Amino acid sequence: MGNADYECPRHVEIPPSKSFFKALKSSLKETFFPDDPFRQFKNQPTSRKLVLGLQHFVPIIEWAPRYTFDFFKSDLISGITIASLAVPQGISYANLANLPPIIGLYSSFVPPLVYAMLGSSKDLAVGTLAVASLLISSMLGKVVSPTENPKLYFQLALTSTFFAGAFQASLGFLRLGFVVDFLSHATIVGFMGGAATVVCLQQLKGVLGLIHFTHETDVISVMKSIFSQVHKWRWETAVLGCCFLFFLLLTRYFIGHLKKGLNPPSVSDLAFGSPYLSTAIKTGIVTGVIGLAVGPCVPQYLEGVAVGRSFAAFKNYHIDGNKEMIAFGMMNIAGSCTSCYLTGGPFSRTAVNFNAGCKTAVSNIVMATAVMFTLLFLTPLFHYTPLVVLSAIIMAAMLGLIDYEAVIHLWKVDKVDCIVCLGAYFGVVFGSVEIGLVIAVAVSLLRVLLFVARPRTFALGNIPNSSIYRSIDQYPVANNIPGVLILQIDAPIYFANANYLRERISRWIYEEEDKIKSCGQTSLHYVILDIGTVGSIDTSGITMLEEVQKNVDRKGLKLVIANPRSEVIKKLDKSKFIEKIGQEWIYLTVAEAVSACNFTLHTCKPNPGEIDGNRHDDSV
Amino acid sequence: MGNADYECPRHVEIPPSKSFFKALKSSLKETFFPDDPFRQFKNQPTSRKLVLGLQHFVPIIEWAPRYTFDFFKSDLISGITIASLAVPQGISYANLANLPPIIGLYSSFVPPLVYAMLGSSKDLAVGTLAVASLLISSMLGKVVSPTENPKLYFQLALTSTFFAGAFQASLGFLRLGFVVDFLSHATIVGFMGGAATVVCLQQLKGVLGLIHFTHETDVISVMKSIFSQVHKWRWETAVLGCCFLFFLLLTRYFIGHLKKGLNPPSVSDLAFGSPYLSTAIKTGIVTGVIGLAVGPCVPQYLEGVAVGRSFAAFKNYHIDGNKEMIAFGMMNIAGSCTSCYLTGGPFSRTAVNFNAGCKTAVSNIVMATAVMFTLLFLTPLFHYTPLVVLSAIIMAAMLGLIDYEAVIHLWKVDKVDCIVCLGAYFGVVFGSVEIGLVIAVAVSLLRVLLFVARPRTFALGNIPNSSIYRSIDQYPVANNIPGVLILQIDAPIYFANANYLRERISRWIYEEEDKIKSCGQTSLHYVILDIGTVGSIDTSGITMLEEVQKNVDRKGLKLVIANPRSEVIKKLDKSKFIEKIGQEWIYLTVAEAVSACNFTLHTCKPNPGEIDGNRHDDSV
Repeated sequence: MGNADYECPRHVEIPPSKSFFKALKSSLKETFFPDDPFRQFKNQPTSRKLVLGLQHFVPIIEWAPRYTFDFFKSDLISGITIASLAVPQGISYANLANLPPIIGLYSSFVPPLVYAMLGSSKDLAVGTLAVASLLISSMLGKVVSPTENPKLYFQLALTSTFFAGAFQASLGFLRLGFVVDFLSHATIVGFMGGAATVVCLQQLKGVLGLIHFTHETDVISVMKSIFSQVHKWRWETAVLGCCFLFFLLLTRYFIGHLKKGLNPPSVSDLAFGSPYLSTAIKTGIVTGVIGLAVGPCVPQYLEGVAVGRSFAAFKNYHIDGNKEMIAFGMMNIAGSCTSCYLTGGPFSRTAVNFNAGCKTAVSNIVMATAVMFTLLFLTPLFHYTPLVVLSAIIMAAMLGLIDYEAVIHLWKVDKVDCIVCLGAYFGVVFGSVEIGLVIAVAVSLLRVLLFVARPRTFALGNIPNSSIYRSIDQYPVANNIPGVLILQIDAPIYFANANYLRERISRWIYEEEDKIKSCGQTSLHYVILDIGTVGSIDTSGITMLEEVQKNVDRKGLKLVIANPRSEVIKKLDKSKFIEKIGQEWIYLTVAEAVSACNFTLHTCKPNPGEIDGNRHDDSV
Repeated sequence: MGNADYECPRHVEIPPSKSFFKALKSSLKETFFPDDPFRQFKNQPTSRKLVLGLQHFVPIIEWAPRYTFDFFKSDLISGITIASLAVPQGISYANLANLPPIIGLYSSFVPPLVYAMLGSSKDLAVGTLAVASLLISSMLGKVVSPTENPKLYFQLALTSTFFAGAFQASLGFLRLGFVVDFLSHATIVGFMGGAATVVCLQQLKGVLGLIHFTHETDVISVMKSIFSQVHKWRWETAVLGCCFLFFLLLTRYFIGHLKKGLNPPSVSDLAFGSPYLSTAIKTGIVTGVIGLAVGPCVPQYLEGVAVGRSFAAFKNYHIDGNKEMIAFGMMNIAGSCTSCYLTGGPFSRTAVNFNAGCKTAVSNIVMATAVMFTLLFLTPLFHYTPLVVLSAIIMAAMLGLIDYEAVIHLWKVDKVDCIVCLGAYFGVVFGSVEIGLVIAVAVSLLRVLLFVARPRTFALGNIPNSSIYRSIDQYPVANNIPGVLILQIDAPIYFANANYLRERISRWIYEEEDKIKSCGQTSLHYVILDIGTVGSIDTSGITMLEEVQKNVDRKGLKLVIANPRSEVIKKLDKSKFIEKIGQEWIYLTVAEAVSACNFTLHTCKPNPGEIDGNRHDDSV
């Protein structure tokens, strides 16, 4: 490898600083519009901009003219398939939410139509969500009893649906969709698995035909409740339930059973003046987030699930998370005005829709039409469905959500992710759904914070016959440079890790000194900090570097900086750190820094007095 | 720069995986023991270990034998200086906390003695804290009136001090001291400034001699309260107050002034059975964190303040934050049993101690002794101190805390830090101390989270006459490689930013394609991801990379990876991503990746069909 490096070391120039507003604008764009959604509007006449804008917010206008009969055939089949899921699941989940069964059917009629117009996913099937249903019943059930005051309970459920929609839509409008990203995949797997377990346990009430049952959701309360009434178990229902469950698991088809007629309007039922409004808002926000976390992420999971299958051609479309949230929000606001409770894109139904070969959101329209026929003509058929059947339907859907394979995969690839996932699971199962959610969010946040607070530092060595410097830990072949300690800091330096890094760097230095003492090597003269991986620094970070520099000076060593990034060097310059250290000690690459150190070491052994007048010999 | 790179491209080996427990142990050590506090215990006989352990937890045993008369002369002067601050400040702050003035004096006697034995800072002066006093009065005052039920109020203050101490000590024992790091320097500057402003505004009551005054702390309520009683202003007190304030600001020396006798024990006053226990615990935790945030950080500030002065010789010592927390906790637990309320290391007093030339914690012992004499013989002298004097003392101390120079510095160096600081300030001034604290913590956390959720990506170019690749944005001299897009991801890839990065990378690709189309350059064939700055990846991040790879394949391009880190490549291997992309497409450096691409481009123009059988020509 060339010695050209050593002959003409390149110093790092301080880039001209951008104006504050220019920097702010570019940083806001990166934060809120990373996907540049308005790209297509650029350089277009105003009329075209209007059409594009309408197509942007109501995607059906964009794709409807290109819709073909071939597409319709596929969508018809998948639409009818998901309708056959929607009717029994709708009834069962409404029952789980302690709402009248017919509400579940209403919820499979209006929202899918709204989504078909506003949504941009081609695979997502709209419907009620088991976990959100359970959350509604546990959160609202605390303030209003669904059996004693069903009218108020129903009104609160509608109101919370309204707020869920309003919250979802405003997240989308404000381009804050990324908050949902903070619920990691591992967390959702664990949380969903835990919720499915809890929902299944709750179904033991129906399966065993018990009348009195605990209102708690944790596994210990449920088990106590079940085993304290062994004498009341009705073996007939248990046997029937097990058979039916088995049948459902085998066939995924079924029997099904209410009042005729389409959704009545329910704007007047929105209880904004209720004393329980705060509970409704809280429930709305929690279920709204859950609805988003298991909703728009679905296509991402599907891509993960269907690895190796080649559906690139029709998968080749882009989903704008923020736009999806607006669609979900609108769908729920419209739903809350037409007697529907919270809907989203349930994983199981979307997977069925996808596997049944849906091509566009028309499959949702087909499903809504099928549900409409059910509402108009078939509801009396469902009237005598036994509770045990509803329980079995719920359990069949829930068992699919306990994704133990994903847990094994997590354990293999990333242990921490697996622990996060299990934490969320056990939080839900042994605590409550709310506790599980809080644990899931807290653990996810804690992981991010811990990650930020404890960045790694590496000692670098020279890869033989090259000017490349890499971590000695990763490449044992890399050689130490005598008299020089090269450290790489693996994260942005700022308040959350500045104290840690100060301690860690001083430990690196004294460990190196100890090693040198015990081996009798060339004593340490230079500490090179490779800050090429430091993307950002704040004032606490700069103070930390100043302290490290002072500390290094005090030991009679010299601090050298390699490869500072644009933002970092600007800030170091503004805070006068560059002046203190000397711009000649800032190099473009580690190799150049090392060669400069070696040059000084070999030609004129550094006299620390020359480097720093305040040097003290008491090395500690 | 040599062409050796191009001749022998180096592929990256997958390092052998460590056992789970070994990895866990090393990661726990890095998280909780970054400073390796037990280093000195290594390879020592058991008896020596015991002595070292005792010295570790009771540092006075370690330094007392080396204490000299010269040290004592310095410590005596600085100790008497801070005692002259401690007496009036103690009385004033106790008044601010709505506690009997004598409690403030008690609090300057026992805690400094405890700290002198257990603390490791040589400069820190122990005493009551203005902000914590204000917090105690506002948080406890909500549940118990200090005028109507002074006994219970006092008990709650002691109980909350106990919990503050217990919380501080347990943070230290559990090595969780880093949670305090999450209160950034900027946040503390803003919060302290805001609290100081609020405290000063509250003193207008005493300065203007008003009897009725608002209980709110925000600037609007205070101003309303003052200007609604203009006719009641007592100009005499105002003039006296202003004169006194002026005098104090000029001289920093003063007059000073209760019941004789040392601290009575107060263990029986700890109200663990009180119905307000939860308020006491909450107050304890909040004030405990405040006590830590403005306490053990002080030496760090001083180093910042005293830049350019050469006190390296006697500053050359290390403070273990976790050990300091244990010392603070013990000091407050001991204090709560001896009629003291919350103490910490107030900035103003520590700065005075430092400037008066203190050498060791003996200055705290001298101060405690001076306060003891005051308690035994001089308290009757203070009996007739007018309230206006106390107000003036508080204002004099508080004005020093409004650090507008730090705000200007923050604005110059880091705009975001400055906004965080002003946010905390205005939260305290226009809301309340609690709101300010919540805003400060929330903004600090939000900043960390946003930083993590929105990492930057850069396009790299070749620095002429070298094999170095750097950001084109930072080094405009860097050249694009025709047909190759080189991207650098500037952060760990995981759940919080995986969605963002997917969108941002696909935007980079289509922007590059648009540019190529408009300029008629060589069309794009390769996308090189330089992940040398990606320190870590989780399962969501791997899924993201898989999707990027699929997306790139679909466009007929080839994804190449450069410089993966040890942890990242292990996980990519476990999740089969390496298999999918082909290990021959993973290079040690960007230069090698580029040369491999160029080789293929120039010798055998890549037939995308060869690279990926499932390619589709519909580039989107």
